[in-house]
Parts: sequence; structure tokens; C-alpha cells
Amino acid sequence: MNRTVKESSTDATFQIACGFVAGAERVGMKPDGNDLAIIFSEAPAVVAGVFTKNRVRAAPVVYSSRIAANGRARAIVANSGNANACTGQNGEDDVRAMAGEAATRLGIDPDEVIVASTGVIGVPLPIDSVCGGIRALCGNLSQHGIKDAAEAILTTDTVPKLASASFECAGAEATITGMAKGAGMIAPHMATMLAFLTTDVAMDAGPLQSALAAAVESSFNRITVDGDTSTNDMVVILANGESHGKKIQPDSNDYEAFSSLLRELCQHLARQIVLDGEGATKFVEIAVRGAATDDDARAAARTVAESLLVKTALFGGDPNWGRIMAALGRSGAEIDPGTVDVSLNEVQLVLRGEGVQETEGRAAEALRSDNVRITIVLEKGNCDSFVWTTDLSSEYVRINAHYRT
Amino acid sequence: MNRTVKESSTDATFQIACGFVAGAERVGMKPDGNDLAIIFSEAPAVVAGVFTKNRVRAAPVVYSSRIAANGRARAIVANSGNANACTGQNGEDDVRAMAGEAATRLGIDPDEVIVASTGVIGVPLPIDSVCGGIRALCGNLSQHGIKDAAEAILTTDTVPKLASASFECAGAEATITGMAKGAGMIAPHMATMLAFLTTDVAMDAGPLQSALAAAVESSFNRITVDGDTSTNDMVVILANGESHGKKIQPDSNDYEAFSSLLRELCQHLARQIVLDGEGATKFVEIAVRGAATDDDARAAARTVAESLLVKTALFGGDPNWGRIMAALGRSGAEIDPGTVDVSLNEVQLVLRGEGVQETEGRAAEALRSDNVRITIVLEKGNCDSFVWTTDLSSEYVRINAHYRT
Repeated sequence: MNRTVKESSTDATFQIACGFVAGAERVGMKPDGNDLAIIFSEAPAVVAGVFTKNRVRAAPVVYSSRIAANGRARAIVANSGNANACTGQNGEDDVRAMAGEAATRLGIDPDEVIVASTGVIGVPLPIDSVCGGIRALCGNLSQHGIKDAAEAILTTDTVPKLASASFECAGAEATITGMAKGAGMIAPHMATMLAFLTTDVAMDAGPLQSALAAAVESSFNRITVDGDTSTNDMVVILANGESHGKKIQPDSNDYEAFSSLLRELCQHLARQIVLDGEGATKFVEIAVRGAATDDDARAAARTVAESLLVKTALFGGDPNWGRIMAALGRSGAEIDPGTVDVSLNEVQLVLRGEGVQETEGRAAEALRSDNVRITIVLEKGNCDSFVWTTDLSSEYVRINAHYRT
Repeated sequence: MNRTVKESSTDATFQIACGFVAGAERVGMKPDGNDLAIIFSEAPAVVAGVFTKNRVRAAPVVYSSRIAANGRARAIVANSGNANACTGQNGEDDVRAMAGEAATRLGIDPDEVIVASTGVIGVPLPIDSVCGGIRALCGNLSQHGIKDAAEAILTTDTVPKLASASFECAGAEATITGMAKGAGMIAPHMATMLAFLTTDVAMDAGPLQSALAAAVESSFNRITVDGDTSTNDMVVILANGESHGKKIQPDSNDYEAFSSLLRELCQHLARQIVLDGEGATKFVEIAVRGAATDDDARAAARTVAESLLVKTALFGGDPNWGRIMAALGRSGAEIDPGTVDVSLNEVQLVLRGEGVQETEGRAAEALRSDNVRITIVLEKGNCDSFVWTTDLSSEYVRINAHYRT
């Protein structure tokens, strides 16, 4: 069974799930390049979605979370360069106009259109131009348009993030394809992590939602560049059954295989987002083992991952375990400093709460790697978690301080 | 009634509370300058203290919080350059050795000595040299030594933080004197915010603790440079009654006057810490009004204050209110975006959740000031809070990434 995740940039056999077409168009909200993308299922499809928990939710998030709750959608219309957030009633009207325009041109119901936006907060959309772009683009969708669509949703990202995997499932060759954008949780006046997935398996919306929620929990919810969540985050998947396999039933082997591959694909995209983090020089995994509760494990991993002092030390190549201990101490997780072990890649830094002086040189050496894994063992229970993050460089400050100047 | 807070550096009439002496000595834990300080009350005194909530607590914090709970202490022994944190049983033995040495030389009980440390985590104290320093210093304490002591507790700070205020209280002229150190919550392998206060009022330990806890809550607990708390934070006050006024009774007018002045002095010191924040170019107050609960008000203020995106925008001079809204949205506080107002100094940025486009230029102008006040009105209730912080500059990253190279 071939389950390798393929990236569009490095694999010529990269393919989009059956029955989907996509494309991109320039409206002019970004300084350069396409800033409007559409993904469309030629057959009826079900939808599942996970949306930002931020209480300030952009108009497209409010709208699309309602569409996803219906379980049925065939199109995703996404723009970059303007977040349509904090835009009041006009913003809501604009979302409906985008969905309506796409529905008319694609011959589907407006309630089958997911709308997503990313970009500047608080600026009205140039809605006439956007609708003009949608009109032009709906006549110009193709299987090959997926790469253009993945480029069109980018903001401060430096590379498109697009991955695909095929597998035998429910008696047919099936495919899942995904694209994502995001570089800081919110870039300067730009917003958002977006991910759009398409698959040709046949599945009801309920189990699709469960599989997506589980995949997001162990991928996109495990990454943090700067601790800021956005007004516009969303992850959406469409499934259209065009692989012509049997319908995947909950709790079946096929469901497990699909869920596992979906998680792998989401993790692949999540890693790409971290690697493209603003100013990032290292990919860092913070793994916590032996916490008393799942919440403790998550809180400990996240507090260490988001500590400015830990992140700047990683950038500086300093295996400064005191900062890790201090972050653990304020994380809210139950810890006893005397039972804490910390290692960096294969080098033990802290043993039972005290520093291992003789390994400092080897730890500094290990920190020269672009890939750093910090493992923290608490010995308080059996709960584990991990977070993926980056170091914090002066380039991050430059990007986020001076973007508009 | 003269209640002006005086700084040692700018006011020749600066004075220490009656009956206290202090001094400093060099042991050699810091590259330059004195790194050992002692403050001593020549008369019996009561003590109150507030200690770090970080679960990784340095040995002197564990020890001194027990001493403070007794309510009686006459001396504070503090070193910089070494935090004596994550040092195991040896660390605990070293604290007792420091207290014992000071007690012997000062002719008091070891249970009357508060010990504090700040500096590198995880390195054993050079305890013989430290005790030698204590021996030498105990014979060399004076009223004039307070400025030397304030310098000796510094780590990455660029200026000593020392303030004093006198007032009529309980039938006598009384004085409160305070010193503090801290520049990031934890500087590179350095730790800690410390504040030591002395007063010559007469007061029992219980009401002194209440007054100190209230003062800390609205001063040192309201500041954040980088969100990191330390293993070694402590605020301690000694009161020796040497002003020869009547004993201050709880709930009396004298108690109110004392508490109010203590809060003012602590706020003065807290502001000095923020102004000396690593790489800080601006003093920033985040004020939240109209939150549903006190917790909501605090969470909203702190989340905005600690958002990397907000802090870098302040550094860059960009009145990026979208980042403020996004931080509010993830703060956990109950908010309805449609009722949120945000202003920057006197300029309205957000009105009922939407940006006020025409004020952007004036807001950018206001951001050129070194003093920025962001006021957020939630219209959810009657609870208010504030946090003092700084912007985040590339200099912060440089300091914290490259300190040891």
C-alpha cells in the first residue's frame, strides 16, 4: 500500500483527488500575484470544518462554520490580502455576495459554498472586484489549477504548502489532497492559518468531522509560532466519493486507514507552516512525557514552546535549561522539580531537576542542528503531549515591526 | 503632608528608614562590581513577604518564605550573579550557611535572616567565598550603604532602582525605603525580580503582610516584560518601629495612609523595572475597562500586553489595532467584538469593534511617544484592570539570544 505523502514541488506524480478542480485569479488585494482561489467538486460532496476559537471571528468564519454544520458543500472560495474581519454588517454582506456569485456561476446552491479570507484586518473588501474575479475564475477551473490555488492563498508565507497522498480504501484507489497557508499565527495586519483538504472517498459528514477534528488536534493544534491565534483560522475538508469505493463506515478498518492518512497529511502541512515561520531558523519539537493529566502535558509543552526566553536561547544556540525549568514552573502543570528530566536531541540537560554540567558542550553542538527536539519527562503520570514551534529571531521582530513601513 | 516619592539618583534629601543600615561587597559571582548586599535593622523588626508562584522555586525562596511566615526578621542577605536554583540539597545547605554566617556576625537568630539570590540557574554557589563576603560586610554596614546595596543586587539591569518616601504617621515622621532589580522577568541565565523594602513604622506582621500583598498586586504583579516569571522572585518588607510612632492598627487611618504610600512606592519601583526592560523603547500601559469579571479584566490586559504581534507593532510604530482585537479574542475574557472600543493615548482606534480609519495617522503620531496608554473598553460589566509592559525590539532578541556568546 502506497501511503507516502507527496509534495507538489518535489514529486511529479503529485495529484489532486478525483472530481475536484481548482484555480486562481488576481483581484488586486495583495501587492503581487493571484489573491483569489476556488476549489470545486464537480459532484455533490460532504464537508467538515474546524474553526478558530478566537472570540473575535471574521465574517467568513461565522458564515462558513454555519455551512460546515449543515454537512454539505461543493466549493471553497478563498481570498488573501484582506481578512474581512472587524468589518461589521458590511463584512457579512460581502461574504454572502461572494458565496452567491460563486453559486450562480458554478450552478450550485449558495449554501454549498465555504468562504475564507486572510489578510489585513478592518478594511472593507473591494467586493465588486472580488465578485468580478469569482465570475472570471469559475469559467477557468481545472485539475491543474490546484497549485495556483495554493499560491493564491498565501500572505507572508515564502512557499506554497501543498501535499497529497493516495491509498487503497474501501475497494478503490483514493486520494487526499491538502493545501495550507500560515507563517506567523497572524502576520502583520495579515491573518491566519488556513487549510483546505479534498478527498474522493465516500463518507458521511459526521464521521468526516470526527476524523478531521482528530487530525487537527494532533497537527494544526500542535503548532505555535508566536502564541497568537487568528480571527480567521479554518481547516475545511470536502469529500465527494468520486473514487467510487464503498462508503466508509465509522469504526471500520477503512475509517481507521482514512483517519490515519488524514492525520499524516495534516501533520505534513503543519510542519511546513512551522518551517516557514516568520524569521524561523529551527524546527523545534517540545515533547512532554509523564504528566499527571492531558491538560498538564499540553500546558507544559505549550508554555515552554511559547517562552520568549526559551525561543531566543534556541536562536542564540544556548542550551539554557534554566529557562526551560522556569517555563515549566509557571505552566500550571503539576511538577516536582526534583523529578524533572530534560534532554535536547540525544543529550541529557537536566537530571532530576539539576543541570548535567558535563553535557553543556554537546548540547550546544546539538543546537546547531536545524531540527531540535526537547524532551521533558515529569514523572507525574502517564500523559504525553508535544508542540511544534520555532526559535525567535531578530528577523521575526523585523518582519512584524516594520512590515507596513 | 509630604508624600513625594524620592529617587536616590535625583534627590539629595533621599533617606533610609530609621534604624536600618546596609552595604555591599564583591564576592566575584558577577563579572564586575559588588554582588553581595545586606540590609540590617539595628532593632527587632517584623517581616512580610510575597514570593514567586513559579513551581520551580530556588532554594532561597523556599527558605525565606518560611522565615517570612514566622513574621519576624532583622536582616536581608542577597547575592547576584548566581540564582542558587535547581541546585538540590547543596543549594538548601548553602542558604542555611548564608543565614547562619550573617546571624553570627550580626548577633541575631538565624531564623531572623531572609536570603535572596538572583543570577545563573543551576550552578552551585561558591559558598566559602560568599560566607567570607558576609563576614567582611557585616562589619561594614551604614546608613549610607543603601545605594551600594541597590547596585549590588542588579544583573542585566542598566540602572539601580531605589526610592524613598516620608510621611506623618501614627504621631511621628515615618519613612519607607525600597530597592528593586529586574529587567526581563528572567534575563539570560539570570533570574528574577527582587524588591526589598524597609520602614520604621511600628506594625504587627499580619497587617504588614496584608498591606504588602495589596501593594504588590497593584504594582509588581501588573508588570510584564516577556511573560516569564522566575524561580527566584520575591518582595520583602521589614518594619522596625524606630520612627517611635504608635503601633499602626489594622483598618485605622494610619493603616490606610501607610498602605497607600507603600503601594505608591511599589508602583514607582515597578515602573522603573519596566522602563529598564531589556531592549524596551516604550513604556506601555494596557488598561481594560468594563470587563465582566476581575479575572476577565486581568486576562484581557495581560494577553494584549504579552502578544508578540502587539509588542512588535508598538516597536515598529504601527497602530495595528487588528492585533489588539485578535489578542482580546483569544484571552478567554468574555467579549462581544461589536461592543469593543480601543483607544491609544487620546486617539480612538476602534469604535464598537470596527476600525476608525480616519484616525490612523494621528494614532501613528501618538505612537512616537515613549509613553503609550492603550485603553480597551469591553462594555461587559464593571471590572477594570491594567498591566504595564514594554514594546518588543530586536535589541530584546539580541540580549536574550547572545548574552553568553
